[in-house]
Amino acid sequence: VDRADKTLVRQLVLPLRTADLAELLELLRPDERQDLVEMLGTDFNPEVLSELDESVRDHVIELLDPKDLAAALTEMDSDDAVYLLEDMDEAEQRLILDQLPASERAALEQSLDYPEYSAGRLMQRELVAVPPHWDVGQTLDYLREAEELPHEFYEIFVVDPAYKPVGTVPLSRVTRSKRPVLISEIMETEQTLIPVEMDQEEVALQFTKYDLISAAVVDEGGRLVGVVTVDDIVEVISEEAAEDIRLLAGLGEESISDSVLQTSRSRVPWLMVNLVTATLAAAVIALFDATIEKMVALAVLMPIVASMGGNAGTQTMTVTVRALATRDLVHFNARRTIAREFFVGVLNGMIFALILGGLSALLFGNEWLGAVFAGAIMINLVVASLTGILIPLGLDKLGADPAVSSAVFVTTMTDVVGFFSFLGLAALILFY
Amino acid sequence: VDRADKTLVRQLVLPLRTADLAELLELLRPDERQDLVEMLGTDFNPEVLSELDESVRDHVIELLDPKDLAAALTEMDSDDAVYLLEDMDEAEQRLILDQLPASERAALEQSLDYPEYSAGRLMQRELVAVPPHWDVGQTLDYLREAEELPHEFYEIFVVDPAYKPVGTVPLSRVTRSKRPVLISEIMETEQTLIPVEMDQEEVALQFTKYDLISAAVVDEGGRLVGVVTVDDIVEVISEEAAEDIRLLAGLGEESISDSVLQTSRSRVPWLMVNLVTATLAAAVIALFDATIEKMVALAVLMPIVASMGGNAGTQTMTVTVRALATRDLVHFNARRTIAREFFVGVLNGMIFALILGGLSALLFGNEWLGAVFAGAIMINLVVASLTGILIPLGLDKLGADPAVSSAVFVTTMTDVVGFFSFLGLAALILFY
Repeated sequence: VDRADKTLVRQLVLPLRTADLAELLELLRPDERQDLVEMLGTDFNPEVLSELDESVRDHVIELLDPKDLAAALTEMDSDDAVYLLEDMDEAEQRLILDQLPASERAALEQSLDYPEYSAGRLMQRELVAVPPHWDVGQTLDYLREAEELPHEFYEIFVVDPAYKPVGTVPLSRVTRSKRPVLISEIMETEQTLIPVEMDQEEVALQFTKYDLISAAVVDEGGRLVGVVTVDDIVEVISEEAAEDIRLLAGLGEESISDSVLQTSRSRVPWLMVNLVTATLAAAVIALFDATIEKMVALAVLMPIVASMGGNAGTQTMTVTVRALATRDLVHFNARRTIAREFFVGVLNGMIFALILGGLSALLFGNEWLGAVFAGAIMINLVVASLTGILIPLGLDKLGADPAVSSAVFVTTMTDVVGFFSFLGLAALILFY
Repeated sequence: VDRADKTLVRQLVLPLRTADLAELLELLRPDERQDLVEMLGTDFNPEVLSELDESVRDHVIELLDPKDLAAALTEMDSDDAVYLLEDMDEAEQRLILDQLPASERAALEQSLDYPEYSAGRLMQRELVAVPPHWDVGQTLDYLREAEELPHEFYEIFVVDPAYKPVGTVPLSRVTRSKRPVLISEIMETEQTLIPVEMDQEEVALQFTKYDLISAAVVDEGGRLVGVVTVDDIVEVISEEAAEDIRLLAGLGEESISDSVLQTSRSRVPWLMVNLVTATLAAAVIALFDATIEKMVALAVLMPIVASMGGNAGTQTMTVTVRALATRDLVHFNARRTIAREFFVGVLNGMIFALILGGLSALLFGNEWLGAVFAGAIMINLVVASLTGILIPLGLDKLGADPAVSSAVFVTTMTDVVGFFSFLGLAALILFY
């Protein structure tokens, strides 16, 4: 972006689709970003905001006039408006909400009252609902005349007089039916209703499982209050998967557009935890310093025991965390899966005990050292398999997110058991 | 599942939705699964197949009559049929394809000719296409009369006489317009066309970026050949994210319903790779066995250096792999991001060098040991940051999937550099 050539920049940027403009804003340096937003002035389309990373979005919001922002919010479907508002601090929220007409302000405030990451935050209030006794013709006429409909919709919800959903009709079925056909004849009565407090991860699982395009959201009384659409779910699925990946690697909320300080701050806590657990493992080694002094080969081989265990444990843990997240691992098959992991640990333990025990016996010309090494590998791979499944299962049972803390426990366990079993066996067998 | 009570089981299972029946089949042991499928007999709904895990699906397909399977395929939209066929071996595919009417067989064979994981495999051929000069009334009449339409659809594609897409109309806009309005007046001309060979991961990125519900697929000549819908994309996004998580943890294609042998086989290769790299690290330690013999405290502290580096490297690598997958990291911002990682490495290196150097100097009463430890931590955290970003970037540039192999390179690097810098500095400073 060259400051000099304002007209050229505007010519290039204005025809971009909102998602492309968002991508451009994320790639720019903060000062370039400011220049661009200022150059666009009132031509800046605030819809771009909902496509931006959080740190970039905060920056761009600061550059805009609250009045323009409020005007833009009234144009959006309510889910997009809530999405923008929920990340602002309270003062900013107030500033913008106060610019809105009373009815819209009340609706948005109510949405913001639902807990974060709930269906209530995700849903839009604009939807199409008709009674079952209407026919297709009445429905089409209503769609043509009504004012306050969503920008786009894919299904029509059928409600009883108490506004409780009784069925759903895909819009394509409406268009394929003749005008006199009753809605109650073509509606699906088998529907997936989303309670307004349901966690978004659970909502996404429902969408994935039943291949939904949109779903009715109901309040505690069972009345229809909104609709969640699949485009928001696509977002949720990407975010939740990315979150699991980040958590397993010990990362906080972090994006590629964060600054050095933000990034450092998000990574230090995990490194601090790792410092403690690594120190614990070192303390185990220190217990056996006299043994190591007698045979330095032990110091050479011991990291291999810990590392093989750590990797095997991470494999099992990753499978378990994912299976818990997708509900493929439930109470019903837990015991069978634990047994399977145990046998996988025994089998892989034997394979690598044979290989590594044999190699080390040959290399160091000491079959007792080989036996100790093999025994430690065997023990550690079995322990790795068991902790890899039991720790996430236990955390899940306690109501904790297994993705957050499993990795620490598993690798601490495999380090400690690895060093202890190897050096302990060595002290017992080689020097006793 | 109790074999005795066939009628009761049928009463419980038959009203289940297909996704729920699929979940039940996945949870059952193989022998129970066989009993259930046999009990259901001809009432078994083959649509369930497309919801099953691969290993369970293979098992259930074996239990079914190829004739019933072929009959079920003709009822499905073509994308679901292809999804079922593509995982079978060639003999099974032939057996079933031969039961189909010639026209359907040809269409399915053509779909199977597209490369795996391409848009061509993902798309369905059934779609709604109209010319731009039609009006809304003509379109609605066509929708009511036409026979070969998809089960559900959300958008209508507008094509020119050469069958090239010229626009898209959301179905809701058709229903909201009056009958005399021309399609060309209400269509969106800004559309996302998917080339038939595009990789499914790239297709999913397009859907996420532009919030699409469906998108037209075009052949090399630019003609409309099919449509990809968002429900398939939801599947792809979940799969691709799960794949990245699996690959980063060194896992093959593996699901919770696999057997002990299948699981062991999927995990051994990575453990084998880890064996080689751990041995490399051990060889570095062996270089310094004389140094360790002089001071066993080195053996106690050295795993901390390696482990801190490994964790810091994994953090950077995970962020980088994700950013490459979501196209947040591209050529344009690569250099800036590398610089940022370098500074994060320096900053975190200083923090942990100070903490660990200070503690170890106090604990062992040897400030030179503390200095060596601090220096090694500093070096290894900077190296970890740099390899954590440069290795995935390099693999990506070479056309390899950075999720597959980054982890090996990064942890090998941090182990080797960790041990070498710590023991090397110790040999130089403490004993020279």
